[in-house]
Amino acid sequence: MSKSIFYHAGCSVCISAEHEIVKLIGKDNIEIVNIGENRSRIEEAELVGVKSVPALLTPTNNVLHLNFGASMADVKG
Amino acid sequence: MSKSIFYHAGCSVCISAEHEIVKLIGKDNIEIVNIGENRSRIEEAELVGVKSVPALLTPTNNVLHLNFGASMADVKG
Repeated sequence: MSKSIFYHAGCSVCISAEHEIVKLIGKDNIEIVNIGENRSRIEEAELVGVKSVPALLTPTNNVLHLNFGASMADVKG
Repeated sequence: MSKSIFYHAGCSVCISAEHEIVKLIGKDNIEIVNIGENRSRIEEAELVGVKSVPALLTPTNNVLHLNFGASMADVKG
């Protein structure tokens, strides 16, 4: 199974969700991408369907949006 | 580790999220609760902090709200 990708923007809601997801899925099964710091990944995130962060892209290419996070517009702004 | 609980309301967004979560965490590690059908669980869901469905209550009692789902008010209404 390929890895999941967890997109976040470094906010406290994101970090809290990251810890929960890593505990549930296991850190070896997930790539963590901070699109606040690594802005070159923003376009990729949008292409796969990320509409807000934190979000989890599953190995089957479905996006689970978590919590009531920051909108992509907020991260870019 | 105790189980996670996945609260949903039977909508298509919920079912899609359920399938993804079950694949990621494993069905033996999660209890699925349809609060649309099993309305006696609504109060419990609200007490643990569920604000919208689908949502995942983790074994550490944190709630991850998934997708852009239905609000608790919609489920009750």
